[in-house]
Amino acid sequence: MAWIEPEVTRKPKKPMFLCVLSNTKTAHIPKLSAAGKTAELTDYTPAGDAELMDTGNIISVPVLPMTPPYDTPTPAIMTRSALKLTDAPYHFINSGLIVTPGVPCIDLRAKPGEDIREPIAVRDVQGIYERAKFLAKRLRNQVDHVVIGESIPGGTTTAMGVLMALGYDGNVSSSADENPLELKKKVVEEGMKASGLTFGCLKEEPLKAIACMGDPMMPAVVGLAAGFQGTDIEVVLAGGTQMAAVYALIKHMGFNTEKISIATTRYVVEDKSANFNEITKSLGASVYVADPGFGKSSLKGLHRYETGTIKEGAGAGGAMYLAGLFGITQDEFRAEVEEVCKLLKAGH
Amino acid sequence: MAWIEPEVTRKPKKPMFLCVLSNTKTAHIPKLSAAGKTAELTDYTPAGDAELMDTGNIISVPVLPMTPPYDTPTPAIMTRSALKLTDAPYHFINSGLIVTPGVPCIDLRAKPGEDIREPIAVRDVQGIYERAKFLAKRLRNQVDHVVIGESIPGGTTTAMGVLMALGYDGNVSSSADENPLELKKKVVEEGMKASGLTFGCLKEEPLKAIACMGDPMMPAVVGLAAGFQGTDIEVVLAGGTQMAAVYALIKHMGFNTEKISIATTRYVVEDKSANFNEITKSLGASVYVADPGFGKSSLKGLHRYETGTIKEGAGAGGAMYLAGLFGITQDEFRAEVEEVCKLLKAGH
Repeated sequence: MAWIEPEVTRKPKKPMFLCVLSNTKTAHIPKLSAAGKTAELTDYTPAGDAELMDTGNIISVPVLPMTPPYDTPTPAIMTRSALKLTDAPYHFINSGLIVTPGVPCIDLRAKPGEDIREPIAVRDVQGIYERAKFLAKRLRNQVDHVVIGESIPGGTTTAMGVLMALGYDGNVSSSADENPLELKKKVVEEGMKASGLTFGCLKEEPLKAIACMGDPMMPAVVGLAAGFQGTDIEVVLAGGTQMAAVYALIKHMGFNTEKISIATTRYVVEDKSANFNEITKSLGASVYVADPGFGKSSLKGLHRYETGTIKEGAGAGGAMYLAGLFGITQDEFRAEVEEVCKLLKAGH
Repeated sequence: MAWIEPEVTRKPKKPMFLCVLSNTKTAHIPKLSAAGKTAELTDYTPAGDAELMDTGNIISVPVLPMTPPYDTPTPAIMTRSALKLTDAPYHFINSGLIVTPGVPCIDLRAKPGEDIREPIAVRDVQGIYERAKFLAKRLRNQVDHVVIGESIPGGTTTAMGVLMALGYDGNVSSSADENPLELKKKVVEEGMKASGLTFGCLKEEPLKAIACMGDPMMPAVVGLAAGFQGTDIEVVLAGGTQMAAVYALIKHMGFNTEKISIATTRYVVEDKSANFNEITKSLGASVYVADPGFGKSSLKGLHRYETGTIKEGAGAGGAMYLAGLFGITQDEFRAEVEEVCKLLKAGH
């Protein structure tokens, strides 16, 4: 396939990459999230991702975000590479972190998400939403094209939860070699029960769906989208099933989705265990697919992406899409990722 | 005098206004700070200023920042007006707030400053400095002209403290009708004693001067300046004696100050109780002076500025300088300030 599909050519005048960083205690359920060596170490993943994207290395967290069993490096290496190649402005948004990074974040004063098996998964959804909306309004005159990524371990399970509450069959993707789909389903079922929900019962109340089954990344991204409504600003949600869930939330809010699309990696689209394609199709979402072409890489760690160990994260697909908009080729991109990986190794 | 002196004409291509928001417990000393109705209410002033600058009103703090005895509105009304007229991008930076605003801030993970009569006035100066430097590096490709303001009650006393530690006679300005200069001097003397300092003894250690006698706004602004070093980016410190102290810190850090200047209001420059002019002259700092021309205003609250009740704050002078760069006239500016004041009244 092509590097970015459908092909993108117009270079945006005022692009910006935003990455929303959050934690949910749902990730502490053993074997649920693979975005970290152990369930507890996933607390550090969003902070580590931000430090890596900003500086090329970790600076305050104890471990580099890796996925077992082969210690595949975080997809943030792709985002770092795209940001370096495009020189695009970017910011990180703290929306409920347990561990904050050593690099500055825009703070939405959100609390970390609870285990969705608790009655309340996200507190103060409305407040997070409103503050994100303020932020988007403030950014309006700085941007014409915004790519919004996320880093939140456990986020595919909360995505499944929200999709179910909104009435979508949410077989979600995973950053694990083998998708623990049965475990995720069990957790979501327990969560639905704890909140007294049935399939689709919150389709008219998307913010309540977040409060009961979601995570703090969601009201942040939905609020950003709200703040860009009524403008000509292109909003690209960078991610797989998680951003499909956010797109669904935005749609159920009744927003105009003409200027909103999703960008993700080939690995998400080709994941047979997940139904990303079905969900985005039923939502009528435009989807851009980026293929980093890691099969040609000399670095073994990058091959893991080809075999499905990691699929997406830290807005990697959207960052590649941004690189595509700037006319960066797949070969240039892969070379930069290899450079980022080498510097990382040198730093550790 | 002219509206902006010396006259400014070139319109910057990529301007940005940053406002560093901080608190220091030094402001809790009775009668020291006038940036709030009571010493305790000054805790809300930076948060209220940010909300007002961003939205035109307060949204979460209990009271509008006012200065007794005439309830003169905060200089943030001037900053709000300039931001509206120029449509310049802006961000708020939380560097040690006690009360955080309901609008998003970039967080430097700083703790509020202690009373300078304690042995340590600011904790983790190096960390705040480094994070601010990261932020400036990230912003480098977004800006060619950065105006940096501050909002920190009690900040003129900490400015005096730092100036003394660096070896400058720091008779500072005030946002009070009668400058409580004797009280400030006494507090600074006690602070010097508590930290075992003598006049000028820290001229080689500016970051230590902040730690002993300063406030958390200072390492943030010095760190930002550090991150813009070696670029063509113009850095304008927006404030009176407080920014003169920051300029001194930057100079004592050994930084190149060719691209760094100060912008303030006429009220600071004409304040006979303070020696802003002497300090900036001895530092060799370029100073821009803005005159909002409030004498011509129909609103009585604005006349208070003419009689010296309030002089500067929330980067008001620098925001006016920015308006000047954009070709906004004094009359247009005053009309907008009046509009902002009317909407404020309507909202309460």
